[in-house]
Amino acid sequence: MRLLWQRAGMLQKLLPQTKHYRRWLATTTASARGNGQEEKDNARYKWSTPESKAEMLLYGVCWTGGLGLAYFLLTQRGEPEAKLDDETLARLWHITARKDLPTYKAEQVEQHNAPDKRIWVTYGLGVYDVTEFAENHPGGDKIMMAAGSAIDPFWAIYQQHNTLEVLELLESFRIGNLEGVTVASTDEELGSPWAQEPKRHALLKPASKRPFNAEPPIGMLAEKFYTPNELFYVRNHLPVPVLAPEEYELEIDASGGEQKEPLTLTLAQIKALPKHTVTAAIMCGGNRRSEMTSIKAVKGLSWGAGAVGNAKWSGARLCDLLREQGVQPNESMHVIFEGADLDPTSHPYGASIPLSKALDPRGDVILAYEMNDNPLTRDHGYPIRVIVPGTVGARNVKWLTRIVVADHESDSHWQQNDYKGFSPSTDWDTVDFGKAEAIQAMPVTSAICTPLPGERVKVNPEDGYITVRGYAWSGGGRKILRVDLTGDAGKTWHVAELEQEDAPDGRHYGWSLWTARLPITKDQQEQQQVEIWAKAVDSAYNVQPEKFEHIWNLRGVLANAYHKVKVKLA
Amino acid sequence: MRLLWQRAGMLQKLLPQTKHYRRWLATTTASARGNGQEEKDNARYKWSTPESKAEMLLYGVCWTGGLGLAYFLLTQRGEPEAKLDDETLARLWHITARKDLPTYKAEQVEQHNAPDKRIWVTYGLGVYDVTEFAENHPGGDKIMMAAGSAIDPFWAIYQQHNTLEVLELLESFRIGNLEGVTVASTDEELGSPWAQEPKRHALLKPASKRPFNAEPPIGMLAEKFYTPNELFYVRNHLPVPVLAPEEYELEIDASGGEQKEPLTLTLAQIKALPKHTVTAAIMCGGNRRSEMTSIKAVKGLSWGAGAVGNAKWSGARLCDLLREQGVQPNESMHVIFEGADLDPTSHPYGASIPLSKALDPRGDVILAYEMNDNPLTRDHGYPIRVIVPGTVGARNVKWLTRIVVADHESDSHWQQNDYKGFSPSTDWDTVDFGKAEAIQAMPVTSAICTPLPGERVKVNPEDGYITVRGYAWSGGGRKILRVDLTGDAGKTWHVAELEQEDAPDGRHYGWSLWTARLPITKDQQEQQQVEIWAKAVDSAYNVQPEKFEHIWNLRGVLANAYHKVKVKLA
Repeated sequence: MRLLWQRAGMLQKLLPQTKHYRRWLATTTASARGNGQEEKDNARYKWSTPESKAEMLLYGVCWTGGLGLAYFLLTQRGEPEAKLDDETLARLWHITARKDLPTYKAEQVEQHNAPDKRIWVTYGLGVYDVTEFAENHPGGDKIMMAAGSAIDPFWAIYQQHNTLEVLELLESFRIGNLEGVTVASTDEELGSPWAQEPKRHALLKPASKRPFNAEPPIGMLAEKFYTPNELFYVRNHLPVPVLAPEEYELEIDASGGEQKEPLTLTLAQIKALPKHTVTAAIMCGGNRRSEMTSIKAVKGLSWGAGAVGNAKWSGARLCDLLREQGVQPNESMHVIFEGADLDPTSHPYGASIPLSKALDPRGDVILAYEMNDNPLTRDHGYPIRVIVPGTVGARNVKWLTRIVVADHESDSHWQQNDYKGFSPSTDWDTVDFGKAEAIQAMPVTSAICTPLPGERVKVNPEDGYITVRGYAWSGGGRKILRVDLTGDAGKTWHVAELEQEDAPDGRHYGWSLWTARLPITKDQQEQQQVEIWAKAVDSAYNVQPEKFEHIWNLRGVLANAYHKVKVKLA
Repeated sequence: MRLLWQRAGMLQKLLPQTKHYRRWLATTTASARGNGQEEKDNARYKWSTPESKAEMLLYGVCWTGGLGLAYFLLTQRGEPEAKLDDETLARLWHITARKDLPTYKAEQVEQHNAPDKRIWVTYGLGVYDVTEFAENHPGGDKIMMAAGSAIDPFWAIYQQHNTLEVLELLESFRIGNLEGVTVASTDEELGSPWAQEPKRHALLKPASKRPFNAEPPIGMLAEKFYTPNELFYVRNHLPVPVLAPEEYELEIDASGGEQKEPLTLTLAQIKALPKHTVTAAIMCGGNRRSEMTSIKAVKGLSWGAGAVGNAKWSGARLCDLLREQGVQPNESMHVIFEGADLDPTSHPYGASIPLSKALDPRGDVILAYEMNDNPLTRDHGYPIRVIVPGTVGARNVKWLTRIVVADHESDSHWQQNDYKGFSPSTDWDTVDFGKAEAIQAMPVTSAICTPLPGERVKVNPEDGYITVRGYAWSGGGRKILRVDLTGDAGKTWHVAELEQEDAPDGRHYGWSLWTARLPITKDQQEQQQVEIWAKAVDSAYNVQPEKFEHIWNLRGVLANAYHKVKVKLA
């Protein structure tokens, strides 16, 4: 009975959501009538993502499956526009008990914990037989770690499971309910891995709160060549660790598998090494994923074009350290980085890069302790983050605690089963992560930062032009040679002015900001709108692809098609 | 009167051409009626290039301007299908005299040879006052070298002048006729720079004969990972020099501008250095230009997709030589290469690369004396060609005789005013070669080698598939990760099997051959045709752009859009 009340209390907190639901219905109908305006489109879009569908469906699941309060709740109208986040989603799901199934004690579940038995796990109130699934799941070994017990802590970390699709799949394995489970309070308990997250700037708009992933408003991005630290996008994969500078140690195992004592460096020792500064943009592999999603749904955080920032990083050069340790060039070796951020099994976040990149003085890989002349903040890897210029954000490991020179890549989930590209026809049934290569250098891209989609722009009455600003960047140190803009679907192109660092090609790791003046035709002025396209060209004369259809991939990474923005004209 | 007969004799040789003209008229009309077949399209295309238009118009110019035989000739019908080449074009032009203008003696022209006078030049029978033009022409200094004399030898080299557009421009400066000029015989005289060209394989189809530029049949390209030397495309900018191995010397000026004796190496000394072998594809900057031209005309040789080949090159490593000469890394320095092939002013072909590429052991720049385990042939740079893997063909200087480490790029025409990319809206009125960067690393590309356009392909009756083969390559040492094929305009993509060298990324200088099996739908089989598209992805996950419209540039370089081939099904 106590549990029942708890549930009722939690569901009451969701009352405000019903307003979202009603609005979604209204805008979908409006859109079907063909008078969809930008805002309505946005609202409709918001509700067409897998996450939002999951939210809606969860109402139904909770209401009908658990307490039978659905009708009552649906007719309520709340006012505040709070968004149902991933945690709530997961929490809601696992408070649900099913009356059609038997109830098991925890001790019964515990017996199903080894490969020679049926494998049971629990998630919230549910008991699941995952024997067949574990055999085929790419993370089958991780599942076995939870055999006979709860997978909740794993899923609190691997948030990619918190989608309706996955939860429904899990539910298909449901064999019963767990006896006597109480639900965690909504207020964060002390001791939770999320209890010590840093405070973030209010302008950082979270794509997910746990782990914290957020980008700044894109309209501000092109305003400053060096992105302010507090507005620099944050992409965390796990809870932010707490590292005391006086206790911090970095272990460097450069033995390459031979028996040799690893080098250990304190923060003071790293800071005592020659200080090297490099300007580098860091970009998430999923930057601009929301545009790719709009073609066809992908799995991943819905990033806008703001999952990128440009900074001046300072620290010790990795190539010097490795050479001092006797590391010789070897084309088949890798350098593995491990962070202090741990998953529930105490495995750290990890990634690797080829040794050739790490050893190349022109690669400019540094153990950074400063970002734009200030100490790193906790969200950006305090006290040490490895900066791998020109390389996808995921390899720029934060809270760096261990470096290993090895004859293989990192075996982490993020190196092996994430951050890889596939053909547009590869789906979750056919994907083989083992056959694709881990993203390292990123392809050329650009984005229009101002004006924003749907913004009303004043045409200069004297010359009939509008001004467009944005960023462009390419991986691998390739310089941006040109950014072309068009307002007439490519019939005429206008070359933007570039603002970029005077770096040599091959070490052009910073981004380029650009400003273009676009002539507005009489037709466009009469129709009061124009669609602006931007495309960049890098120093290998690679260009962005025109559209997302032919580069679509199931993880929504490498979303570098032309950036297209429709604006209104005044 | 003797001259008149000569002219008449030459024009008679052109009679066969009238058949071309009639066929062009016929196919254009057919095409306008909407029943254009592949062959007709090809024929129409052939006549829509600037060169072919020039050919046609030249009939008119010769006939009306010189001899008044136009009507008579146009009504003649010859049978053989000989093609009017650039030399004939130029020769035809300059035998024309104009009766409306005065006649000058050579001595009169000679007096107009300095900047303080009107500048006159001659071209064939024409006398031209180019004073205003020389002041604004990018090669104004070259023009001044011809002041008071004939520009014919220059134009025999810089074949880009042999277009109707340029010849018409020249004619607008015409002030008279030159007295007493006889026309060179059609047989090659001894002493001509072209007299000692090597013999070429009959399968090499020339895009131009002088200088010799030719590609092999594309259908053979994907058959062998290492392209046979005799079928390897040839891109010469000037006549092939004759170099005796025992007299050959390579000068290396590594002083960087300081006073220091340059190093001179004989061929034997180069061969005595440690031998380094690298697999590298060499690709012309204009490869696949003919596809770009089909969107909108560009200036340049009409290359198909065969201006590329893959070979194993062996020679001495440039980085070792430069380091031995005390050259230190310097991001603002360049390495200039000069060939033994000379223009009429005795200036050599030249190009440069950044010093960072030359000094990088992973850059694999070599002074090659072997190509696929055989000595270089004369067409490929005998005795020494610098191989700059991953870099556009034009920087792989043949007949290498001089290397200079300098604080500037090569000042050659080919480095400064050619082999650069521009926005699609840049035209010859607005182009500023000084503002674009010289092409070095090439962008990712691919081509379908079999089946050929228009070929009839048998669908495998057992599984309903056809087999498609081709090559893919990316510059800068980037590996080809994937080649995707589609037969339904991108609705479904099929990943090809790759054949590639096991090289580390960043040094993946060889091309990849690929084979794909493409399913044929019932619809396609009923319509008896399918259009195949190929696109490649490189290790920076750069992809080819979808089409040529948005990457078009006035020189027709960097033509790396999807390769699209329509075939018939049996």
